[in-house]
Order: sequence, then structure tokens, then C-alpha cells
Amino acid sequence: MTKDNIRTIPDLRLSDPSRVLSRVAQIGSIGRTEDGGCSRLAFSEQDIEARDLVASWMRDLGMSVTSDAIGNLIGILPGASDVAPLVIGSHIDTVENGGKYDGVLGVLAGLEVAHLIVEEGRAPERPLWVIAFTNEEGSRFQPDLMGSAVFSGRLGLAEALRSKDSAGSTVEQELARHQIAGSFSIPETPLYGFLELHIEQGPVLEAEEISIGIVTGIQGFRWLQFNFEGEANHAGTTPMTFRHDASLGAAWLVNHIKVLTQTHDGLVGNVGDVRLTPSNINVIPGHARALVDLRHPEQGVLDNVVETLKIELKEAGQKLELGTTVKDVANGSVTQFDARLVDLIEDCANDLAIPSRRLVSGAAHDAQMIAGFAPTAMVFVPSRGGISHNPKEHTSDVHIREGISVLLTVARHLLFESDRNVP
Amino acid sequence: MTKDNIRTIPDLRLSDPSRVLSRVAQIGSIGRTEDGGCSRLAFSEQDIEARDLVASWMRDLGMSVTSDAIGNLIGILPGASDVAPLVIGSHIDTVENGGKYDGVLGVLAGLEVAHLIVEEGRAPERPLWVIAFTNEEGSRFQPDLMGSAVFSGRLGLAEALRSKDSAGSTVEQELARHQIAGSFSIPETPLYGFLELHIEQGPVLEAEEISIGIVTGIQGFRWLQFNFEGEANHAGTTPMTFRHDASLGAAWLVNHIKVLTQTHDGLVGNVGDVRLTPSNINVIPGHARALVDLRHPEQGVLDNVVETLKIELKEAGQKLELGTTVKDVANGSVTQFDARLVDLIEDCANDLAIPSRRLVSGAAHDAQMIAGFAPTAMVFVPSRGGISHNPKEHTSDVHIREGISVLLTVARHLLFESDRNVP
Repeated sequence: MTKDNIRTIPDLRLSDPSRVLSRVAQIGSIGRTEDGGCSRLAFSEQDIEARDLVASWMRDLGMSVTSDAIGNLIGILPGASDVAPLVIGSHIDTVENGGKYDGVLGVLAGLEVAHLIVEEGRAPERPLWVIAFTNEEGSRFQPDLMGSAVFSGRLGLAEALRSKDSAGSTVEQELARHQIAGSFSIPETPLYGFLELHIEQGPVLEAEEISIGIVTGIQGFRWLQFNFEGEANHAGTTPMTFRHDASLGAAWLVNHIKVLTQTHDGLVGNVGDVRLTPSNINVIPGHARALVDLRHPEQGVLDNVVETLKIELKEAGQKLELGTTVKDVANGSVTQFDARLVDLIEDCANDLAIPSRRLVSGAAHDAQMIAGFAPTAMVFVPSRGGISHNPKEHTSDVHIREGISVLLTVARHLLFESDRNVP
Repeated sequence: MTKDNIRTIPDLRLSDPSRVLSRVAQIGSIGRTEDGGCSRLAFSEQDIEARDLVASWMRDLGMSVTSDAIGNLIGILPGASDVAPLVIGSHIDTVENGGKYDGVLGVLAGLEVAHLIVEEGRAPERPLWVIAFTNEEGSRFQPDLMGSAVFSGRLGLAEALRSKDSAGSTVEQELARHQIAGSFSIPETPLYGFLELHIEQGPVLEAEEISIGIVTGIQGFRWLQFNFEGEANHAGTTPMTFRHDASLGAAWLVNHIKVLTQTHDGLVGNVGDVRLTPSNINVIPGHARALVDLRHPEQGVLDNVVETLKIELKEAGQKLELGTTVKDVANGSVTQFDARLVDLIEDCANDLAIPSRRLVSGAAHDAQMIAGFAPTAMVFVPSRGGISHNPKEHTSDVHIREGISVLLTVARHLLFESDRNVP
């Protein structure tokens, strides 16, 4: 997988994107909402209808179609020998009233790669699997990334099957109802690699007029709950110097998180939720609770920021005469993608003369579950306005064509390794 | 009503507070809650039971007992001539799980004054009315201060009667059910004066170890709703420089209100409620709404602060790249009490050698409704810890005795004016 090797691979761009665009539209019409969005929550009738359509396209292509115990849909294009497969995939479930591209584009890009390989008329040296992971979004059943987590062994099957939606249905019941759980299980042989094409869900590529994001990894996140304890009191009769106003703690936190992001390169931080208690206009807030999301591409930096923040919180509490506590709500480790695959994607984009840049994903993806299990990398294509999980989610036809061209070139490189050995 | 005159009034302290303390306890036992508080919402069975007990005490004293169309309970001690009466009163309704002193102490202090005058065996020169106003708290029927507002003509009777509780009952129905609306109507003759003794509901007197607050007026308030409009977005994928985070607007507001109170003497301000939307840990707040309560004893200062704040809001919005709006939610004008009555209270406290200080009430009281209608003033006694509307509400026996002593001395001065003319 070096730059020298790649030059031996024939350039095979996606010259005609009409099939994949038509399929994006077809899947997008399943669960279509009034304002043009999509609602295909995991295990909904719409999710299953879209799944069946993808399975039919797999079969049309001569792939053998199977599924595993958590319902991940897997289409297998056999290789010349039964060695470790290259896997391409993403998901087809959506959030409530989400967009047409998130997840779906990655599955259809995998199918399109398979289609073009088949059309090329030469069996790849290793198998190609195209996969649609179950319940990536986690809108109805938690945790999210469920299918890829079970697939990679990060989440136990039994735990996943027990997950309940708000109405009390379990994943196990839903799998049985739709008859989508299969007997397929990952072979002992490790995967040769995993590739996921996905919309950026951020504004960077569009703003820089770059078509391809070469994803080097996924930010780690720390979710924290801060509590400030003051004293609720009458807002008219209590002189200012007698107050212990918890809202001042929340305001300090909002501003301090902003300062931290300005002094730590690559750090993003958000105070997404603030609750004042008792929450009356004429009562001094006696308590404030704030939820903070901090993310950074380097685990050490992220953890240091949090440790320092905990000390600064105590100091701020003393100054503001408020009690303070902080607790961890959730966290996700930094994911580093496979350096050789990252280099390969960059080389392929360069060879195709498609503008690209490296970046770190701020959002979670199935690829992060697979990353500990097989060499993994991702290709991002631009999101208009950085918008996702929204009916306005959009990626242009040109960017779809360019993204799939890069994915195809990378996949051919991995599927026809012997080509690289030709002197 | 000068200091010289007052010296001609015999000192008649409340030497034995046992009757009034016993009555505070008796009324406090009606609607008593598990944790020692009181629930006597206006027109509840408990409110009516307490009202009947007060009326019986009025009758025991030989007062004629009557009520007006909004159910204000009025006990009349006739004077030697039928001139304008001196009126003393407050209310006996409470908030849900309130305290034993708020309102009740003022009614019982008035009754105690009447008792001591009667015991003195000499008819006052002018009538003394003791009044328990209907629905001061406004917990069940809005607006608050209902009885005193109708009494003084600030609120139309018809409008008050139409007021509905959350179950759909009207004030008119409640008055009929309890048969407490009477035919009494204020005579054309103006009142000679109105006095209200009340707990401070703030911490100032206790902190300064002062027994008597001479209330010079009631702060005006402006209640405002601020809106900050940003853009909701993904907290992981959106670079910091692309964000329009409405939480920064709310934080600016909290801190700026604090600064305003530090730079404007007498100003108190509170941001009691903040709502971020959509309120998810991993979504940048696209909208923030904050409710602000600003109070000041001078209307001009208060209004200037609000006008300046509106300009500063625009500037802050531009700097933070947020849209901003602000609207008035409610307001109450500054109430100035009668300067001669205020002086008289101060003189009486001084003559009794009871420590006193002038202050402005931060809370609303029936007296502010009467202030535009008759010369009015208030006497505050300390609230332990500044706490009210709470089972922990407490005023010490000593402070009750001292408060009633001052009230009695002031009342005697006004009831026996001819004494002051003796050379």
C-alpha cells in the first residue's frame, strides 16, 4: 500500500453516478416525511422495507445475502480465493425526520463498488462484503452503533438483544418479528480491512471547497454533568450581597468551556443543557445543572483538559460561594484509523486529482467499532451547510461521484493486490 | 405628627405578648402541613376557618364585623365621632406550604392594637378598622393582592369575580359557596391612614440586629424575557469558529445583570429561568430564553437601567453573532409610602428605644394597593434567615412584641389626635 504500488492500478472512476443517485432517491422515499426528510428508525417497517430493497440489489448482483444474529445485512461477492474479505459498509436506519444521505450513502457506495467490480468482469482476489449495520442511530434502542458493536465483539449479543424501546419491546422481539436475524457469524480469519464512506455532518469540507475528507480517526469525547449548589431565595427581598446564585456557576461554565476551546487546539466543547432550579423569574436559582460535551482527537489532551477543569471548577465555586460537583456521564475513547489505509485513501484521491484533506470525525460512526477489530478507515464527502439529522441534509451529485471514485480506487487496490506486484 | 407631638402620647408598650402569640399558633394550626408549614390558599376550607376565627375574635372585642363584595373581612371599632377611620390590616391566606407569620401577623397585630385600645377604656377619637384582605398571595386565583386591589379601586370587582382557578372555579362562585361576600362599601370619606405590620421576608434586619424596619416604599419591578437566536448544530462535528451558540448569550446576560447591580446602588436583579433549545448535551444550543427580574426603589433609575440594557443586549448579540429580542413580561411601579407616617413610625420606634432602620420592601404587599388611596406605611419585623413562603418562616417573640409596640404607639398617636393638642 505505497504510493509506488498504487500507480499500477488502472484509473476507474465512477463515470456515471445515475444508478447510485437513483438508489439514494429510492431508499429516501421509504419513510419519507412531510418536509422531505426520512424516518426509518431501526426495526421500523420502513427500516425493514429499505433493508429488503438493498438485499434485492445485492442478489441482483449475484452476491450471496446473509445476516448475523443482530440482523446486520451482509452481501458477499466471492473472491478468487477464500482469504480475508474487504468489507465496505455503513447503515440504513435514520433518526426521526433525518436525511437521505447519512449512512445510506455508505451502503450504496459499497454496492456501487461491487457493481463496478462485477461489471469489470474479473473476480477479485479476495471476497468483498457489503454490509448494512443494524441500528446505528440508536434513536429507538440504545446503545447506538449496535450492529457494528456486536459484529466486532465490542457489545455482547445478549445485552443487545435485551435492549428495550420506550414501549417495552426488545431488540430480540423485533428481530424475531421481522425474521431478520441470521446464522452468519464472523469467521476466525480476520477482516482484511473495513472502509466506510459517509457524509461529513460538519461544515469543513464545504467551507474549504474540498471534495474528500480522509478521516484519520474519531474524536474522543467526555460527557460531564456539573452541579452548582447555591440558595434559592426571594429575588426582590434578598440584597445582592446575601445571594448564592447558582446561575452564576452555569454562566461561568459556559464562558470557561469557550475559553478552553480557544486555548486548546482541536478541542471542541458544548454546554448543551442548563437547568436552573426552582426556575421562577422571581426566585434566585438555588441549583444549576449543566451538561457538557468535550471532544478532542488526542485522548491525553482530552483527559488533561477534564482533570484541569475539575480543579478550576472548585476554584470558581469558592469564588462564587457555590457548592460544586461534577460527574462523568459518558465517554468514548479516541479512535485512530489504520495509518496505511489513511495513506492509501490520500494517495488515491491525489492520483484522481480530487481535492482532499485529512480530518478527524467529530461524530460517531460504525467504523469506530470495527477499528479495533480490523484495519479501518473512512472517506467523508461534504455536507451542505454542515447539516445532518435534518431533512435539509444534502450532498451534491458531484461529491457523491468523487467520493465513490476514491472508494472504488481504494477498494480495487485492496481487492486486486497482485496487480501491485507486477513490476 | 411631629416628634414634639408624640412625646405627649403615653408610652403603652405591649407588655404581655402571650395573647397574640397564642393566636398566631391557633391560626397556624389551621391548614398545618406535615413539615410544620401552613396551606391556606384563598377560599379554601382552611382559609375560611381561619377567617371565621378572626371574625369571632373581632366580635369578642365588641367590634362590628362586616365584609365587602370581594370578601375582605372588616372589624370596626367605633370612634367618638364618625370621621375617617384608621385602618390596620394584612391577610390570612398563605401560599401552598407557607409559613405562620406572613400576613397573619399583620391582622393579629391590628386586633391586638384594638384590644389594648379597648382595654384602655377610652373610646378613640376616630374609628379603628382591622381588616383581613382576601387572596393576597394569588396562589390559586390571579391576580395577587386581589382584596386590597378591589378595596382601593385599583382592580374592578367584575374582573376579580371572573378570575378562575386551574379547576375552572371562579372567585364569584367561591364567594357564594362560602357566603363571605358582604354589602359593605367604602364610604366617600377617605381613610385617615393605613398601617400594615409584616415580616420582612428578607435578611437585612436580622443581619443588622435591628427589630423594626420602617418601610419607605415598595420597589418597582420590571420583568423581561430575553431571547438569543443562534443555530443548533452537531456539538462534535461543528468547528468552534462555525458556531452560533445561544448559551453564550444567556451566560452574558447572567453576568451582565450582576454587573448592573454592582454599578447601580439599590438595584437587585435575577435571572431566574434559562431554557436552552433543543437542550441536548451534544447539540449546540440554537436558542436561549432567559427571564429577568429587575427591581429598584426609584422608577427613573429602574426604567433607565432597562433602556440601557436593551441597547447593551444588541451590542452583545452582534459580538456573539446571535440574534436578540427582549420583551416586557410584567412590571410594577415604585410605591412611595406616606412621608409623614414614615416619620411617625421612626419617631415612635425611637421614643420606645427600639432599634429601627428605613428600608424599601422588595416584596409586594396589600399596602401598595392602598397607598394610592390613603396615607399608608408599613412596619417590618425580622424574618429569621430571611426565609418566607416556607415552613421555616420564623419571627421571634421579642420581635413580635417590639413590632406591635411600635404599631400600637403609632396607632394611639393617630387615634387620639387631640392628645397632641394639649399644650
